[in-house]
Amino acid sequence: MTHLSDIEIASQVKMKPIEEVAKTLGIESDDISLYGKYKAKLNAHQLDKMKDKKDGKLILVTAITPTPAGEGKTTTSVGLADALTKIGKKAMLALREPSLGPVFGVKGGAAGGGYAQVVPMEDINLHFTGDFHAIGAANNLLAALLDNHIHHGNALGIDSRQITWKRVVDMNDRQLRYVVDGLRGKVNGVPREDGFDITVASEIMAILCLATDMIDLKEKLKKIIVGYTFAGEPVTAGDLKAEGSLAALLKDAIHPNLVQTLEHTPALIHGGPFANIAHGCNSALATKMALKYADYAVTEAGFGADLGAEKFIDIKCRLADLKPDAVVLVATIRALKMHGGVPKKELGPENVEAVLAGLPNLEKHLENIQNVYGMPAVVAINKFPTDTEAELQAVYQACQERGVDVVVSDVWGKGGAGGVELAEKVIELAEQPNQFSYVYDLEDSIEEKLTKIVQKVYGGTGVEITPAARKVMANLERLGFGTYPICMAKTQYSFSDDASLIGRPSDFTVTIRDLKISAGAGFIVALTGAVMTMPGLPKVPAAEKIDVDEFGVISGLF
Amino acid sequence: MTHLSDIEIASQVKMKPIEEVAKTLGIESDDISLYGKYKAKLNAHQLDKMKDKKDGKLILVTAITPTPAGEGKTTTSVGLADALTKIGKKAMLALREPSLGPVFGVKGGAAGGGYAQVVPMEDINLHFTGDFHAIGAANNLLAALLDNHIHHGNALGIDSRQITWKRVVDMNDRQLRYVVDGLRGKVNGVPREDGFDITVASEIMAILCLATDMIDLKEKLKKIIVGYTFAGEPVTAGDLKAEGSLAALLKDAIHPNLVQTLEHTPALIHGGPFANIAHGCNSALATKMALKYADYAVTEAGFGADLGAEKFIDIKCRLADLKPDAVVLVATIRALKMHGGVPKKELGPENVEAVLAGLPNLEKHLENIQNVYGMPAVVAINKFPTDTEAELQAVYQACQERGVDVVVSDVWGKGGAGGVELAEKVIELAEQPNQFSYVYDLEDSIEEKLTKIVQKVYGGTGVEITPAARKVMANLERLGFGTYPICMAKTQYSFSDDASLIGRPSDFTVTIRDLKISAGAGFIVALTGAVMTMPGLPKVPAAEKIDVDEFGVISGLF
Repeated sequence: MTHLSDIEIASQVKMKPIEEVAKTLGIESDDISLYGKYKAKLNAHQLDKMKDKKDGKLILVTAITPTPAGEGKTTTSVGLADALTKIGKKAMLALREPSLGPVFGVKGGAAGGGYAQVVPMEDINLHFTGDFHAIGAANNLLAALLDNHIHHGNALGIDSRQITWKRVVDMNDRQLRYVVDGLRGKVNGVPREDGFDITVASEIMAILCLATDMIDLKEKLKKIIVGYTFAGEPVTAGDLKAEGSLAALLKDAIHPNLVQTLEHTPALIHGGPFANIAHGCNSALATKMALKYADYAVTEAGFGADLGAEKFIDIKCRLADLKPDAVVLVATIRALKMHGGVPKKELGPENVEAVLAGLPNLEKHLENIQNVYGMPAVVAINKFPTDTEAELQAVYQACQERGVDVVVSDVWGKGGAGGVELAEKVIELAEQPNQFSYVYDLEDSIEEKLTKIVQKVYGGTGVEITPAARKVMANLERLGFGTYPICMAKTQYSFSDDASLIGRPSDFTVTIRDLKISAGAGFIVALTGAVMTMPGLPKVPAAEKIDVDEFGVISGLF
Repeated sequence: MTHLSDIEIASQVKMKPIEEVAKTLGIESDDISLYGKYKAKLNAHQLDKMKDKKDGKLILVTAITPTPAGEGKTTTSVGLADALTKIGKKAMLALREPSLGPVFGVKGGAAGGGYAQVVPMEDINLHFTGDFHAIGAANNLLAALLDNHIHHGNALGIDSRQITWKRVVDMNDRQLRYVVDGLRGKVNGVPREDGFDITVASEIMAILCLATDMIDLKEKLKKIIVGYTFAGEPVTAGDLKAEGSLAALLKDAIHPNLVQTLEHTPALIHGGPFANIAHGCNSALATKMALKYADYAVTEAGFGADLGAEKFIDIKCRLADLKPDAVVLVATIRALKMHGGVPKKELGPENVEAVLAGLPNLEKHLENIQNVYGMPAVVAINKFPTDTEAELQAVYQACQERGVDVVVSDVWGKGGAGGVELAEKVIELAEQPNQFSYVYDLEDSIEEKLTKIVQKVYGGTGVEITPAARKVMANLERLGFGTYPICMAKTQYSFSDDASLIGRPSDFTVTIRDLKISAGAGFIVALTGAVMTMPGLPKVPAAEKIDVDEFGVISGLF
């Protein structure tokens, strides 16, 4: 067992020039734009040229309901791609870009871990190729144009009490959650209540991740609703003539970023929308390109399979015309024990009973993947040194009853070599026919869609829609958004809307408190409770330990 | 005469791969980090390796007092460098990066004009290599750490009414000038008055532009004063343990950016601090590197020679140990006529009397360059089609009396070919011995420094310091900042602090209303009136016309 930190492991590996990595998948130097030696943008126009080329297999990595014990979805994704490469397959990753803000808080980086990482991790975790800054600038230009319009006479009749567009910074900054701006007289704007989100929560992030090309991006940007008039009619970015300049700011950001794993497997890391108020998946362009260049494209979706995988299927796959071929459900013995009721501090000792008590959570996710999403699945147990044979046996047995294989994955400790069995299983599954299906139809009413998600995926009895939400629902239907897919904003810690109900809760309803339209991205956000769209920093932020030496080498990042 | 727009001219020229451009000055591919094919970062560590190499000549391009008629400092700088290259000299530009915000307002780009431009102009004017976003992120991380400290118990005893550190966005957004943040209860920060500046106004921008290497950068970041305690003592970024993570965010931004002119002359474009509350010059590192690689490094400073050149000399040259070899004073016949009292609409017809009436402005700047700064100068008349021979003769004659040559420069219309005479004159001047000197000594008291600037450079009778400013002055001296250089924040439209006093005003005093310490950057800002640090957008912003096509080609930018 190694005791090296992620950044120490990463710095021991010699990266290959990214042009060399690109060549392993037949990507020519002319098709990429270098950002230093180890990062590049892969020109999205290549997709047009390859439209007749057959797609590879799409592998979705998802997980059981998250617990503080951790699962390791990104690590498993990276290790799986490395293992596929190791056994001679052309594999490519499609992952989300991490947000800058949390790096300085408690979270640290988000580029895998151990011997299953994407590199250069410090660049990926800081500014990377500037995509998030570009998204922030576009978001804030739209806000500035909006307030400028009101300031200069408000010809559109925008009601400043009904502005829904917020400014963003890519920073954990609670001080900006609720503000009053436009203060100090008529030359300095119009006073109103306002607030900031973190950049990943911007609808423009979701748009960039769902756009199929620049023209589609502009169309989506144009449809963004920034607020409402005094007459209650929506005001769009198009009304403000903003879509052209917003798209100009995104002209580079639209192209997926190419990096490599520690084992030199090519990885597209592109886009990172919030997994609650947005759909939590990397860009559709990155996934589509990975499918063209590789025989196996490995991707992941935020949170557990009830949230991330459902949105992956009902939003991303539906809107971007994608279809997965196999699903990997990641779990850890530790997390299963937590679902079985064991507190975090007592996860060390063997406890087969707790594993058994926690298994219904995993089983419900498997049921969903197999019976609701119609996909073949394999369970990947992300190995921890404390796992015992008896505990693993309990998982094997439960899954065997469902006809699902369980593979222990040690990609954290061994890289691709620790994921060969998983890779072989994935290859086998991806050859199987499947009955891929959405959870609901777009033609279902909003209430029907909500009900189907709750009943089929969450295992609840139904939805309760508050009178306020019902009013919004009627208005969204009036405005023609009734056929949009639903983006659930629900706690990731439970199948239900109550974070304390771990395991496999039953006999619950989910309360829909509010609905929001992301008219540009193309979905309706259903809010089941307060959603944090601007995190704060802890008392001792990670920022205090981060440093850089005279040669630009970063320390303390993780 | 061409009628093509700047972007049309730029798009007709085929850029060379930036590696090829670098090679013309002996810069190896290993020393640069590519950002696409036509932009690169030049590793600042090369300076160490070249420390024994003799510096080239440093040419400062400055201008008469700005008028709405325009002067063309950047255009002249670019054309001069091209002309030097044309006649076989190794020349390199060192210029400021443009700010993103104004691009969407009225200003358009800032990369020269006509046939004297730096390219790729649309990238330079949008995100470029991300430096400004990095500076914004560092600025805002410091703000978040500050408010987070107060939120978590305020161990340092920071007085939230005396916080001097503002957040920034690189956007013209008047709505953010004055805000109240931290609203809605104890989990959402601490309510206080606050405000946003545009990114170029951040002290971190000034710091990046004055830092000599990463260690120096961290030292300067550490000294930033973010506010004061209830006891009136300064609180620094170092007190918040912020300098390491701020520097980590700037690890790439510290390296100068290499691009090319339309004629493939190498250009370092790096940093762009405000020319009022900061010193308005590109980074010291870019200037130093240009001097190592080229025989002639052409640089410019913001606003007229009373502000930009004075700060270039008293702040940048002093703190970064630089010394210019020749000064180019840019003027236009149109601007001289405005200084002679002619309104903008009537600048077309010949008006020798108005030129004569405006010449005292040019003469005072020449006096300053020659007698105060101790430098040899040449006057470059940036040619307009309406200029007449008689008008030019008036300028020739006035300058001849001072022993100064006047050269008509047509680099806008002809590129380097239009600046050959200017280039030859500059080469000649740079060989002359000079009596380079600062306007004041660091050991002078703050009041003495202010007085010397006003009397020697502006031609006023002295300073009036308000009682409030006097109190701040005493405190700054108590805190040990008495020996810092002064950064004047004064209207750029007059030698005096009254923008309406064009030409060469006399018998005036300059009122110092407030003083601010930029302890990290290392200067005291003297405020003579309200300084706009967050611009607004006009009623019809340029953003409405900007667009991008499916291939990422930008239109409407200029």
